Amino acid sequence: MSRVYNFSAGPAVLPEEVLKECAEEMMDYKGCGMSVMEMSHRSKVYDEIIKEAEKDLRDLMNIPDNYKVIFVQGGASLVFAGVPMNLMKKGKAAYIITGQWAKKAAQEAEKYGEVVKVASSADKTFSYIPDCSDLDIPDDVDYVYICENNTIYGTKFWELPNTKGHELVADVSSCFLSEPVDVSKYGVIYGGVQKNVGPSGVQIIIVREDLIADGPALKCTPTMMDWKIQSDNESLYNTPPCYGIYVCGKVFKWIKKMGGLEAMKKHNEQKAKILYDFLDSSKMFKGTVEKKDRSLMNVPFITGNEELDKKFVAESKAAGFENLKGHRSVGGMRASIYNAMPIEGVEKLVAFMKKFEEENS
Amino acid sequence: MSRVYNFSAGPAVLPEEVLKECAEEMMDYKGCGMSVMEMSHRSKVYDEIIKEAEKDLRDLMNIPDNYKVIFVQGGASLVFAGVPMNLMKKGKAAYIITGQWAKKAAQEAEKYGEVVKVASSADKTFSYIPDCSDLDIPDDVDYVYICENNTIYGTKFWELPNTKGHELVADVSSCFLSEPVDVSKYGVIYGGVQKNVGPSGVQIIIVREDLIADGPALKCTPTMMDWKIQSDNESLYNTPPCYGIYVCGKVFKWIKKMGGLEAMKKHNEQKAKILYDFLDSSKMFKGTVEKKDRSLMNVPFITGNEELDKKFVAESKAAGFENLKGHRSVGGMRASIYNAMPIEGVEKLVAFMKKFEEENS
Repeated sequence: MSRVYNFSAGPAVLPEEVLKECAEEMMDYKGCGMSVMEMSHRSKVYDEIIKEAEKDLRDLMNIPDNYKVIFVQGGASLVFAGVPMNLMKKGKAAYIITGQWAKKAAQEAEKYGEVVKVASSADKTFSYIPDCSDLDIPDDVDYVYICENNTIYGTKFWELPNTKGHELVADVSSCFLSEPVDVSKYGVIYGGVQKNVGPSGVQIIIVREDLIADGPALKCTPTMMDWKIQSDNESLYNTPPCYGIYVCGKVFKWIKKMGGLEAMKKHNEQKAKILYDFLDSSKMFKGTVEKKDRSLMNVPFITGNEELDKKFVAESKAAGFENLKGHRSVGGMRASIYNAMPIEGVEKLVAFMKKFEEENS
Repeated sequence: MSRVYNFSAGPAVLPEEVLKECAEEMMDYKGCGMSVMEMSHRSKVYDEIIKEAEKDLRDLMNIPDNYKVIFVQGGASLVFAGVPMNLMKKGKAAYIITGQWAKKAAQEAEKYGEVVKVASSADKTFSYIPDCSDLDIPDDVDYVYICENNTIYGTKFWELPNTKGHELVADVSSCFLSEPVDVSKYGVIYGGVQKNVGPSGVQIIIVREDLIADGPALKCTPTMMDWKIQSDNESLYNTPPCYGIYVCGKVFKWIKKMGGLEAMKKHNEQKAKILYDFLDSSKMFKGTVEKKDRSLMNVPFITGNEELDKKFVAESKAAGFENLKGHRSVGGMRASIYNAMPIEGVEKLVAFMKKFEEENS
């Protein structure tokens, strides 16, 4: 077995010890005589797995008691519809457009009500986060929506928008559990787990209970997308994505063992600093994002020469650095350095970039 | 490691060799240096996994070229909404109610249009399949819906209903790949994979392409539930449940190796015969379903004495037979004997039942 350094934007690198445990428990989970994949979701042993996963997540994020946690299927893309279906009681919402995923979320919401785009960074290819301290938000919106970390463009909201008293809904797929978060500032935090937390196929939605107390806003909401029903049934209305939740649970325990979200933040800042410092000093490579808005998770960079970019991607792959090619919509390179990427992965990448720069200058 | 005989109705037993391969490949899939859980769904290596899974499924089921195959998330319960959303162009559909899942599917469809219940076996606790050879089906329905194998009650449509020319839509979750099927008789066949095919969190929808050519019938359909978009994007509109699809692919290969669906049918008939023959000869245990409608997959039975049922469930569990308790809505016992249940599992169960009968008569 030899492992590469995997800089994929998602699905992405997972902690080796989590994968080892999954392998060891594959045929027989803790002496119960079956794989977690084979267990009834109504069995006592699985109930412990899902309950413990929720408890560990609550501990890690310090989730207040008046917030519900649900594990659902469908991808963030399905939640794009779930947000207006559940929350658009007055039929209007404000969206801040900082990239492709916020744009797609807004487009989907337009099927169900009025969408007001209150800010955007489309003018500069989403390379920054717009000033959201004093936006013109209509009084009658149901919520203000952001994509908090923009996987494709490598930007992050370091300050939450001033929503002027409206509920904040945030897609945190690509920064989930990467640092401490004050859940009470949000109405809804949600994310797909396939970047920082587990295998694709699980979304986690954290929602303040009063927002869903009366059930969904729209009658056309499928039962499976009714957050109140999912919450009342503790994510067991139907068969959940059992194995994925089990892996997430292991990652939660790994983060706890590593010291929790404060420690994760330090670890992530350290890795990002190594890479950004190099980009800022290099004559060949440069970051594409305004410094104040740089993501700790996704680091896009270019050489300014498409042929050289291609050469870099090919040679880095040959050297054991996988998935450094930028998103098909923007080109260049991107290193996603999620929680499970070890520091030496980034150090070795920077050493490789230095060598490449020397050889190609 | 010791493995039990797992009679769970789903998630359910998987072939041991599939699980072994999953464990072996967990840290490093075929030398690519990462787990399938960590792979980009847009990578070449994952593309081969999903393409090969579809190809093997097409081979196994002999799926005609004018049928699309999509892998989606959300559970059959989400497809309950997806069916009317995609197909209810005239706003009306016929449902045949043979159990709880057909009932739930009909209830969900009522959100989106008119539902005509054209037959039901509710009068005898769903212990039989109603005669569907000459139903009174309105001319203007978009489709006729069945749940082909009823997991909870242990019945199976051995003859498809006469739909009088309307499209047949079938939920085959609990009989998927258990025997050969003539796909051309259906407009849509779909199922969750967590019974006969893989881990929970993946649904497979097989749909004739002309039915989705114009996109969904209803405007409120979330993009993720738009079968045309899913099909046009070959199940990669967003990040699919990658790991689950990978396991399904392994199960497809296992079924092929076992001799395909004809061989599966023989294997399943043989197992079911052992159990039904015993039930028919026992003085203590009896099956609950009309003989002509018995499922090969789910075999419910009772002693007629609730205390004895409880004792049996407890003692069978202690003897290494798991999940024999009947569904919470019907009580008694149920043995689910899916493809991956070996014959010796059923033989040993019957031997145990005989012994229990002797000891408790």
